[in-house]
Amino acid sequence: MVKELIVKNRSCRRFYENYLIDIEMLRDFVDCARLSASGANLQPLKYILSCDSQKNSLIFSNIAWAGYLKKWPGPEEGERPSAYVIILGDRTISPTFGCDHGIAAQSILLGATEQGLGGCMINSVKREEMQRVLTLPKQCEILLVIAIGKPKEKVVIEPVGAKGDIQYWRDSEGVHHVPKRSLDEIIIG
Amino acid sequence: MVKELIVKNRSCRRFYENYLIDIEMLRDFVDCARLSASGANLQPLKYILSCDSQKNSLIFSNIAWAGYLKKWPGPEEGERPSAYVIILGDRTISPTFGCDHGIAAQSILLGATEQGLGGCMINSVKREEMQRVLTLPKQCEILLVIAIGKPKEKVVIEPVGAKGDIQYWRDSEGVHHVPKRSLDEIIIG
Repeated sequence: MVKELIVKNRSCRRFYENYLIDIEMLRDFVDCARLSASGANLQPLKYILSCDSQKNSLIFSNIAWAGYLKKWPGPEEGERPSAYVIILGDRTISPTFGCDHGIAAQSILLGATEQGLGGCMINSVKREEMQRVLTLPKQCEILLVIAIGKPKEKVVIEPVGAKGDIQYWRDSEGVHHVPKRSLDEIIIG
Repeated sequence: MVKELIVKNRSCRRFYENYLIDIEMLRDFVDCARLSASGANLQPLKYILSCDSQKNSLIFSNIAWAGYLKKWPGPEEGERPSAYVIILGDRTISPTFGCDHGIAAQSILLGATEQGLGGCMINSVKREEMQRVLTLPKQCEILLVIAIGKPKEKVVIEPVGAKGDIQYWRDSEGVHHVPKRSLDEIIIG
């Protein structure tokens, strides 16, 4: 069931960093994105793959983690992602990218989850700096960074409480809790 | 394999209209979206479901089909979608919606594909008119309309040709052809 895979695919931010992911696996995840829908079939997305420690480290330096966990600066050494897929939008193909990167990112992470991996879509990116250190093509815009690795944290979904707070939080055991709105709250009529 | 499901999930525009889809099935597809990632976990998306002919007809009147098939006005009576999910963005929760609707739409359509259904994400929408005829809440913005039904057309993926044309086309047998860029074209470096 795809729903089970969707439930299993929780945003994950701590990993077994020594678990290696090879480039062929990343290519296969991007192939899942390639075969997904694209607005007007324009396919303006391009991808940067990283699974070596030097490139990973350049990417790590230019992203921010878990906005709601104010006291947590992000995964420490040894718990960082083993790989990344950066989704770019090629402006020579289209000036705008609609929600193509959302479609693509979901396909990539479902592919990764099925392989026992996990990851996180990261939008908090020092875009100019990342563009520079990775010498990305000027016509490409960074849309999303997807961190991928072998999950080293437990994530649970729970209902949004009476106060309506949707901020995720981490308990004393390190379990990450994610409040999700109910079906009845999000379906109108 | 989720990749097989992703490949099977082709944008489909002609359906067996008399194949009925019930509201519980639509709710289950939206549940797939509900359990998917959302930027900063804000979950600003709301959903309108439709699976009765009167509401379907109101929605159908306010969407446009297959921009590249200039001579085709869209599915004729009997081949129209049996159901729709309209994805809205609730501005009281967030002023912007990032690519949340792409993530959600992919989850919904993968759920539908697994049930032997098919569909199409439609962005060409008469938004003001649809807002009015469906009396949608003023704080909600129409982000995407997803048509869903029992597929009555064959869709094949093929490589983009030498000229680089990505426009889909329909052959004399009615088969819908979709050129997709190669993995080597979309992965940089």
